[in-house]
Amino acid sequence: MTPRAILETAVYAADLAAAEVFYRDVLGLPVIAKVAGRHVFFRVGPGVLLVFDPAATEVPSGNPDLPVPTHGARGPGHVCFAASRDEIGRWRERLTAASIEIEAEFDWPNGARSLYVRDPAGNSVEFAEPRLWS
Amino acid sequence: MTPRAILETAVYAADLAAAEVFYRDVLGLPVIAKVAGRHVFFRVGPGVLLVFDPAATEVPSGNPDLPVPTHGARGPGHVCFAASRDEIGRWRERLTAASIEIEAEFDWPNGARSLYVRDPAGNSVEFAEPRLWS
Repeated sequence: MTPRAILETAVYAADLAAAEVFYRDVLGLPVIAKVAGRHVFFRVGPGVLLVFDPAATEVPSGNPDLPVPTHGARGPGHVCFAASRDEIGRWRERLTAASIEIEAEFDWPNGARSLYVRDPAGNSVEFAEPRLWS
Repeated sequence: MTPRAILETAVYAADLAAAEVFYRDVLGLPVIAKVAGRHVFFRVGPGVLLVFDPAATEVPSGNPDLPVPTHGARGPGHVCFAASRDEIGRWRERLTAASIEIEAEFDWPNGARSLYVRDPAGNSVEFAEPRLWS
């Protein structure tokens, strides 16, 4: 037995409203759950992107029926979305149109392309061809 | 256009050797890339789990052909692996046999079950039924 898929990927942001604008409006991800001041969650295909305010998730759950463990990281994290080479070009256009700086864009030694930007919290957000790992 | 899948999920660990033992030997994930002192990467179905030492990834790339942006978070992050209810029971047995404490295990209001442990770096590692988000 080994995990067959990652269900939840987490990044952290103190300004959840700014994160929501980025992931919902610029990237187009549907919001599937939201608790003001704590988190906003987005559907990404078969998985979920969780954006948490670490100041909230560091506080132990007060609900004995839902003893969700604490967590909360500080500093820039990283997430990468799957995209075809054609889509990466379209992401470059859309992100640039939204005044988001392209931090890097290059081909890896195996030929797969990656494009990187920052979300409003400073997390490194990548778009990459899945063959990067094939 | 919206991202259809998350390709890479990242957590951070200063002790990469301990992280490798946990994710490779206890969880059974195949190692697909490794750079001593910087990272170890694991395949998880269609995606990849990246474990980075933030002290290394905070340092800018010295390679002009691969200007990989810096990142690096500190403090406990979070990742969740998909698992059926039956598999969650088997994970409980395997993790307990490996002397890893079960931090929490409960059913969410929609009936989906979650089990939580810590990786050696303190990241919150969850196993959950995908219907949690359906």
